[in-house]
Amino acid sequence: MDKILRIDMGAPGGPAVKTEALGEYAGLGGRAMTSAVVAKEVPPTCHPLSDANKLVIAPGLLSGSAAAISGRISVGCKSPLTGGIKEANSGGQGAQVMGRLGYAAIILEGKADDDSLYKVFIDKDGVKLESAEDLKGLGNYATVEKLSAQYGSKVACVTIGQAGEMKMSAASIAFTDVEQRPTRHAGRGGVGAVMGSKGIKAIVLDDNGMKMRQPADPEKFKAANKAFAAGLRKHPVTGEGLPAFGTNVLTNVVNEAGGYPTHNFKTGQFEGASNLSGETQAALENERGGEGSATHGCHRGCVIRCSGTFYDKDGNFVTKQPEYETVWAHGGNCGIDDLDVVAQLDRMDDDFGLDTIEMGATIGVAMEAGLAKFGDSQAAIRLLQEVGDGTPLGRILGNGAAVTGQVFGVERVPVVKRQSMPAYDPRAVQGIGVTYATTTMGADHTAGYAVATNLLGVGGSVDALKPEGQVELSRNLQIATAAIDSTGMCLFIAFAILDQPDTFNALVDLVGAFIGQPMTADDVTALGQSVLKNEREFNRAAGFTANDDRLPDYFKKEALAPHNVTFGVTDEELDTVFNW
Amino acid sequence: MDKILRIDMGAPGGPAVKTEALGEYAGLGGRAMTSAVVAKEVPPTCHPLSDANKLVIAPGLLSGSAAAISGRISVGCKSPLTGGIKEANSGGQGAQVMGRLGYAAIILEGKADDDSLYKVFIDKDGVKLESAEDLKGLGNYATVEKLSAQYGSKVACVTIGQAGEMKMSAASIAFTDVEQRPTRHAGRGGVGAVMGSKGIKAIVLDDNGMKMRQPADPEKFKAANKAFAAGLRKHPVTGEGLPAFGTNVLTNVVNEAGGYPTHNFKTGQFEGASNLSGETQAALENERGGEGSATHGCHRGCVIRCSGTFYDKDGNFVTKQPEYETVWAHGGNCGIDDLDVVAQLDRMDDDFGLDTIEMGATIGVAMEAGLAKFGDSQAAIRLLQEVGDGTPLGRILGNGAAVTGQVFGVERVPVVKRQSMPAYDPRAVQGIGVTYATTTMGADHTAGYAVATNLLGVGGSVDALKPEGQVELSRNLQIATAAIDSTGMCLFIAFAILDQPDTFNALVDLVGAFIGQPMTADDVTALGQSVLKNEREFNRAAGFTANDDRLPDYFKKEALAPHNVTFGVTDEELDTVFNW
Repeated sequence: MDKILRIDMGAPGGPAVKTEALGEYAGLGGRAMTSAVVAKEVPPTCHPLSDANKLVIAPGLLSGSAAAISGRISVGCKSPLTGGIKEANSGGQGAQVMGRLGYAAIILEGKADDDSLYKVFIDKDGVKLESAEDLKGLGNYATVEKLSAQYGSKVACVTIGQAGEMKMSAASIAFTDVEQRPTRHAGRGGVGAVMGSKGIKAIVLDDNGMKMRQPADPEKFKAANKAFAAGLRKHPVTGEGLPAFGTNVLTNVVNEAGGYPTHNFKTGQFEGASNLSGETQAALENERGGEGSATHGCHRGCVIRCSGTFYDKDGNFVTKQPEYETVWAHGGNCGIDDLDVVAQLDRMDDDFGLDTIEMGATIGVAMEAGLAKFGDSQAAIRLLQEVGDGTPLGRILGNGAAVTGQVFGVERVPVVKRQSMPAYDPRAVQGIGVTYATTTMGADHTAGYAVATNLLGVGGSVDALKPEGQVELSRNLQIATAAIDSTGMCLFIAFAILDQPDTFNALVDLVGAFIGQPMTADDVTALGQSVLKNEREFNRAAGFTANDDRLPDYFKKEALAPHNVTFGVTDEELDTVFNW
Repeated sequence: MDKILRIDMGAPGGPAVKTEALGEYAGLGGRAMTSAVVAKEVPPTCHPLSDANKLVIAPGLLSGSAAAISGRISVGCKSPLTGGIKEANSGGQGAQVMGRLGYAAIILEGKADDDSLYKVFIDKDGVKLESAEDLKGLGNYATVEKLSAQYGSKVACVTIGQAGEMKMSAASIAFTDVEQRPTRHAGRGGVGAVMGSKGIKAIVLDDNGMKMRQPADPEKFKAANKAFAAGLRKHPVTGEGLPAFGTNVLTNVVNEAGGYPTHNFKTGQFEGASNLSGETQAALENERGGEGSATHGCHRGCVIRCSGTFYDKDGNFVTKQPEYETVWAHGGNCGIDDLDVVAQLDRMDDDFGLDTIEMGATIGVAMEAGLAKFGDSQAAIRLLQEVGDGTPLGRILGNGAAVTGQVFGVERVPVVKRQSMPAYDPRAVQGIGVTYATTTMGADHTAGYAVATNLLGVGGSVDALKPEGQVELSRNLQIATAAIDSTGMCLFIAFAILDQPDTFNALVDLVGAFIGQPMTADDVTALGQSVLKNEREFNRAAGFTANDDRLPDYFKKEALAPHNVTFGVTDEELDTVFNW
C-alpha cells in the first residue's frame, strides 16, 4: 500500500488515471485516510454531486495482511445526505484485495460533462478504464454477474446499483463478499450517489499474482495476531453470541430493554420481536439451508464469522443473513415481523444499492405519512420497488427520511444531520443518543457504540435510561472507533478489547509490529482524536454548528414506552463531547 | 390596532381564542411585529410544522388608515422552506380590513392532535372558530366562493389551497383583492404550510361597522399624505412605468441588461422575452378586456395601481395581471414565451396556493433534470397540475427547488437558504446577488431591491456587473426595506423615496403624524436595523452561519452570457453586510 490511484473523470480530453506516491498521506489507512483526503482536498461548501467532491476508497492500515479480521474498507466523501463529511465502512473482499494490490487509496475526482458510464479494472499490471454502458441500469447482482463473466470469479467488485446511478442520497456502494455476491455495503450517507455522479459503475480488483502484505516485524506480528485472535474467541460476544446468532442476537436484548424503536420510533418494544430475533433467524436458516451463522465471515481472515446465508422456503438463496439493524429497519420499525419479508427487502436494498437503515427508517416515515399501514409487508415491498424503478415516489424515498418527511409534511422524522437513526431508541439507550447527536457522521450507531456499555455491560456499566455518564462514554467510544476504523479491523473487536486488557494490548502490539514502530494506547487515542478533528473541522467549514449536534426536539418531549423516558442529556453536555 | 388575537389550536379541550393587549409589542406593525413575535416566542430549533411554531399575521403600522398605499400585510413564522425566520408580504384587502378591526396581530399557535380543519370569522362582535370540513381539498377560488356565499361579498378572506393543506414548503397564503378574488399572496417560504399545520383553512375578516383608523395628528397627517401621494405620482417609475405596464415593465429592461435568468439560470437573455414583456402584456389585456394596467390597485388606497386583469382570448377572466417575477418564473426561466400559458400557470398557483417564484424555479430545475424540455408549455402545465393533485411528483415539486434538485440529483439549483432565486441573475445584477446571499429570508429580491440602483438608476448608480459598492447598496436597502415592510407601505414607494428627498420626508412625517410622535430619518433606520437584528439572531440560534450567506458555488464559476460575468463579491465582503 505504497501508492494512491487518482482517476480524474473531468480531465480535458477524457478521464485520466494517475498513480502517485503517498506523500503526506503516508501511514494512514481506512477512515484516517478518507477523512484526511476529504478534509484536505474537498471544498467543504461544494455541492456533493459536483466536480469538486471526491470519492475516496481506502482499505485499513492492516488490510491485505495476515492480521485477523482486518478486512474492512472505508469510503469517504462529502455526503449528499448530510452535507458533511462521510466515512462509510464496509466488509467484503475489497479491502484485502485492494491492500494486496498496493493501493492505499483510490480517489475518484472531477466529473464528466456527459452521462457516460465507466468501469475500472485494476490488477497487477495496472489500471484500465473502460466503457460500462452495458451495465447501465443494472442492479448490483446483475452487474456483478456480468463482471464475473468477464473477469472471473475471484475478483472483488465495487459497484453501484440503480440508486447510485440515479444519485439518490441513500445510495450505497456494494463490495462483493467471499462468494462474490454484492452483499456488503458502504451503506450510509449516499456514497453511492457520489460514485454515480463520477460516472463510475464498477471497480474490479484482481489481486492475482499479488502477495499478502508483510509485517515489518514478522515474529512479533505473528505472536500478537495469535493473542489477538484468541482474545476474540474468548469473549462471550465475539466468541459466542455473534457467531451463534449474528448481529441479530440483539433483537431480543434491545427489545427487552425497551429501546427497540417501533412504528417509526413511537414505542420502545415490538410485540412481534421474537419472530425477528437472531435465535428465530438462526433456526430458520439452519432448517432451510443446513447452515446457520458461524459459517461466514464477510471477508477472508475473519475470526468472528457472524454472518450466514438466508434461503427461502424452497432452499433458494435470497441474501446474506440480514444484520440486526436491517431486520429492525425493515422489520419492527415498520411493524413487520416476517423474516422472509425482511430478507426480501434486504436483497432488494443490496441489489438497488441502498442503505438498509435509511430505507427502513424512510418507509417508517412514509407509513406515518399514511402511504401505507404499519405492518403491511406487501406495501413495504412495493414502496422499495418504486425506489429501484426510479418512479417519483421512489425518488423521494431513495433520498431518505428527511426528504420524505418534508415532502409529505411529517413532523416526526428520526434523523440527525439529515441521516436516519438506527435501531436503538436514544431515549432508552441514552449513550447512543449522545453518539447520534454529536458524531460527525449524522445519526450513526457505529460511530460510538454506547449500546455495548448501556445494554450489554461491555466496557463497564452506564445506566441506559439516565443521562449521567453518557457523554464521557460516547466521547471515549467515538475516539476509539475512529482509530479502529483506520486499521481495517472490524468494529466488533471492540467488545473484546474493551473488556480484556490483554486483547487490547495484543491489538496495539499487532499494529506496532506491522508498521515496525512500537505503539502505545496513547497513540491509538491520538489517532482517533486526529481523525475526529479533521472531520469536525470539515463540518464546521461546511456550515455545521452546535445546533446540528442535537436530536430532533420530539425526543426530548415525547416519552417512550415502556420506560416513559425522554432524552435527558442537555445541550450543554452535548457540547462537551469533543472537549478532551 | 390595540389588541392581539391568539388562537391556540392545541389547547386542552380544543382550540381556544384569546384577545389580549399589545404589551411589549405595542407600536409594532407588519414585519416588525411578525419578526418580533417569532423571535421572542418561537424556539429557533423547532420543527416548522410542530406545535411550537407560530403563524403571525400583522397589518402594517398604518394599515386601515387613510395613508396612501398602506395596505400591505406581513405573515411570519419559522419557514418550512428555509428553516429560518420568514416574513412573507402580501397585498390584497386583508391589511386594511384587519387594521380597521383593530387587531395588530393574529397569532395561530399550538397544533391539534387530529386532522380537523377550521375557519375563523372575525367581525366587530368578536371571533368565531368553526369547522371547515366542507372546504377540505378545495382550491383558493372555490374556497373563497363558498366563503363569499356565507359571509357576503365584502369580507376579506385569508385562505390556503391544496398546497397548504398538504403542508408543502412552497405553499402560500392567499389574500383576496378588491374584487374578492384570491389573487394576492404571502408567497414565499411556505407560510401556507404552517397555516395548514395549524388546521386553519381560512380566516374571514369583516370590517362592517368599523371605522377607518384615525391619525393622532389629523392635520399634519393629511398634509403629509397629500405630499407623499403626489411624490409617488411624480416619479417616472411609480407615476408612469408601473401604472402603464405593471411590474412586467421589467422584462425588457432586465433582458436587455443581460440579467434575465433563462433556462434555469443558464444564460442571461431570452430570445422570447419580447413576447412576455409588459408592453406586449398590456396591449393584449387592452385588446381582450378593454382595460390594461393602471386600473387596479391590489388594495383600496393604492395610488400606483400597477395591476390589471388578464382575460383569455374569449374574454373570460383568467387571473390578475401576472407580475414580472411570475412571468419570468413560468416564462423565460422555463423557455416559455406564451403569456396565455403564463397566465394559466399563475391562476393555477393562486388556486392551489403556491409561490409562483418557487414553482417556476422548481419547474426549471425539473426541466434541467430531464422531466420535460425547456419551452414545453404543456409539460409545465402538467407538472403544476400534479402539485395540486398531490401526486408523488407533485409533492416533490411543491416542496420547492432544493428538494426537487436533491430528489433528481441536479447540481445546478438556484437557491439560497433553500429558497429559490427570483427573476434577476446575481451575476449580471450583482447588488441583488448580495441581497439574495445575505438576507435573513433566503433568496428574495424584495428584501433589498438593488435592481433599482443597478439597472434602473434609482437611488444613485452602481454598476450592475461589478462587485464594487454592492454590499453598501444592499445593506442600506435591506435596512430601509425592513422599515417599509413594517409600515404597511407597498415596497414600490422605494423608487420615489430613494430619488425624491421631499417624498421621503413626507413619508416620515406621515408616520409621525399618525402615531403622534415626530419621526426622523434616523428613526426609520433604527427601526429597520432592529427588525434585521431580531431576524439575524433567530437565524443564528436556528443554526445559520456565514456559510448560509452564500450563493451556490456555480454562480462563482459559470460565466453568464452575454456579459460572461461571474458573481464577484467575495465571501469576506458578504460577511460585512450586517456591520453597521
